[in-house]
Amino acid sequence: MDYKNFFQDHLQTLKKEGRYRHFANIERRAGDFPKAILKTGNTQKEIIIWCSNDYLGMGQHQKVLRATLGVLKSCGAGAGGTRNISGTTRYHVELEEELARFHNKEAGLVFTSGYVSNDATLSTLGRMLPNCIFYSDADNHASMIQGIKHSGAEKRIFRHNDFKHLEELMAQDDPRAAKIVAFESVYSMDGDIAPIKEICAVAKKYGALTYIDEVHGVGMYGKNGGGIAQKRGLEDQLDIIQGTLGKAFGLVGGYITGSKNLIDFVRSFASGFIFTTSITPAVAAGCIASIKHLRNSSIERDIHQKNASYLKQELTKAKIPHINSESHIIPIMVHDAAKCKQVSDMLLHDYDMYAQPINYPTVPVGLERLRLTPSAIHTKKMCDDIVHALKEIWKKLEL
Amino acid sequence: MDYKNFFQDHLQTLKKEGRYRHFANIERRAGDFPKAILKTGNTQKEIIIWCSNDYLGMGQHQKVLRATLGVLKSCGAGAGGTRNISGTTRYHVELEEELARFHNKEAGLVFTSGYVSNDATLSTLGRMLPNCIFYSDADNHASMIQGIKHSGAEKRIFRHNDFKHLEELMAQDDPRAAKIVAFESVYSMDGDIAPIKEICAVAKKYGALTYIDEVHGVGMYGKNGGGIAQKRGLEDQLDIIQGTLGKAFGLVGGYITGSKNLIDFVRSFASGFIFTTSITPAVAAGCIASIKHLRNSSIERDIHQKNASYLKQELTKAKIPHINSESHIIPIMVHDAAKCKQVSDMLLHDYDMYAQPINYPTVPVGLERLRLTPSAIHTKKMCDDIVHALKEIWKKLEL
Repeated sequence: MDYKNFFQDHLQTLKKEGRYRHFANIERRAGDFPKAILKTGNTQKEIIIWCSNDYLGMGQHQKVLRATLGVLKSCGAGAGGTRNISGTTRYHVELEEELARFHNKEAGLVFTSGYVSNDATLSTLGRMLPNCIFYSDADNHASMIQGIKHSGAEKRIFRHNDFKHLEELMAQDDPRAAKIVAFESVYSMDGDIAPIKEICAVAKKYGALTYIDEVHGVGMYGKNGGGIAQKRGLEDQLDIIQGTLGKAFGLVGGYITGSKNLIDFVRSFASGFIFTTSITPAVAAGCIASIKHLRNSSIERDIHQKNASYLKQELTKAKIPHINSESHIIPIMVHDAAKCKQVSDMLLHDYDMYAQPINYPTVPVGLERLRLTPSAIHTKKMCDDIVHALKEIWKKLEL
Repeated sequence: MDYKNFFQDHLQTLKKEGRYRHFANIERRAGDFPKAILKTGNTQKEIIIWCSNDYLGMGQHQKVLRATLGVLKSCGAGAGGTRNISGTTRYHVELEEELARFHNKEAGLVFTSGYVSNDATLSTLGRMLPNCIFYSDADNHASMIQGIKHSGAEKRIFRHNDFKHLEELMAQDDPRAAKIVAFESVYSMDGDIAPIKEICAVAKKYGALTYIDEVHGVGMYGKNGGGIAQKRGLEDQLDIIQGTLGKAFGLVGGYITGSKNLIDFVRSFASGFIFTTSITPAVAAGCIASIKHLRNSSIERDIHQKNASYLKQELTKAKIPHINSESHIIPIMVHDAAKCKQVSDMLLHDYDMYAQPINYPTVPVGLERLRLTPSAIHTKKMCDDIVHALKEIWKKLEL
């Protein structure tokens, strides 16, 4: 077996297909988001980031920085162990209590990332619940797909957001089998939103647990930022609300919330939770500050929505092809990997604006795009500037 | 399906078997490790931690704190995206370069945790290499077992540290199949060390890639802290050296190092690497400072080894049953879940010393233990005190 050639060949294929990923070297400056410094070789320049998930700018919020700094100084840099073996601090405990309150659930559980929270929770539930069957939305995130696959349980895939198809599938299965319906609220790449009420109604009719991934919803939607389920008054229809601490809250980490017993069960049996060093106390403290702030402040959410609406409106006027999503995520459709990279490169080189090209496997081949995420800290002028830039690029490239 | 009862029954079983985990609420104080504050309900007291993986106390090292604080202030709290989509900073890039240098490899790749680095790397290699067969040490960590399982590849389990058994197994398989031999350097729960040279010799004879988990070795062994493989002059025999940023380095995160193409391959194809928010720039900066310090300073390593030797010697004198391991990990054997908890409780309540009981599934039933990890910042007096405490407890409980 020639390993060297094997790796090389696969990398060559990626390069040939325009799918090889070059990571942009970006340095954000606290207090100056969404501006950042781009480093290329030995040169650097100031750019505007248009593809960050720090949707509300909480990563530079004074309250968040103060809390993180304070605990970093008082408790040190790391947790020093797994949650069970010396790695639980009052900040971990408080964060989980805060998350439970945040989603009006009995309990919360923090993981090292949103990815791990999906993977560990779904794989544990699917593996341990008797004859469990998953019903998974066709567009679910990679981490949910992995969790379901790793569980070894049966799965049915329902067409994206199609609750009638979900019902067709559920009606065919053994009513006594354990079931989990797993879906997202805001879909990351199209920015569309699930019919949560209808999906939950079908799920409950057939006796399933409901699992919602709200990573692109938490902090940003609902009266207290609890997400789309909160906004629609449906929190009590969800058995498990999963979220992230790495997007609107501005730090890193993931979590689930739900009933006391369910959370305690996952806490007790999920390998991906048990056998790993816990998040740093400083990050936990920053997350608490971020959540507390967003529970009580709607200004960030309001500006965020206004910015997204304004940008969508201006893109429509300028006839730049985009998905007019319900959410803050605005996909600019290019439909070709090479051209998508070209648009992204021109934005960066000629206009100092950074939007990473999104290609396969993140989206299907032929649906390549730039995914713009106007944040609460982008200005109207910045929105005008990127629409203007895209117009010029569209003309130049005859798209 | 009665989910509520299902969860409750499983939790009840854990409680009945003495395996239900209560997390101790510990607050470490930077500058004061291994001392910490234990909170129980509304009361709190000062304790000495005896089970932390912050083996060298780097979590409170001034250089680490300064670097972490500095970047937290300048760049903000989080990365704001995945590595590919706006989440790569110069600190991530520098950290990976530093890790490659640290292990004398061409390249490095950082993951959100050591668990994820094992899971994502092994599952990706096993899934993509043609007809891949894993040879896995019987005592490998949960994260390696998960990665191998998730790959869907074939696996053979060789008896712990038994390279002759490894050879028996390898000799029976198709010489053309891709192969990976996966093992650890220092085993977490027994503290014993793998015969790296012999395992690599067998692996190379049968054309396998070698994968070593050095999470309990990096920072602590070898001239520059590169781990057991470095100490034994065997770094070049390992295709992949995996490590953690959450133990001796004092923060959080995991990594692999290896050839440029292999690392680039994992970077390009591992779902658990691609689809997750990157570690915070501040943590990355702290890790760089920690690694740089430990590359050039042996004082911490020397004191660490002296402390471990001294504690083992005093435990032997006091006839406290323990594994006289080659490493810094000292398992105090109790062989019973309930009694193990009792010893731990007495240590904590009567002597203000914290060593979490280790039970199934972390160790097999019947091999329950306290796992003492004397660090570089424990004093001789602290070692004397815990030996004295254990002697009294052993007498009281008639163990």
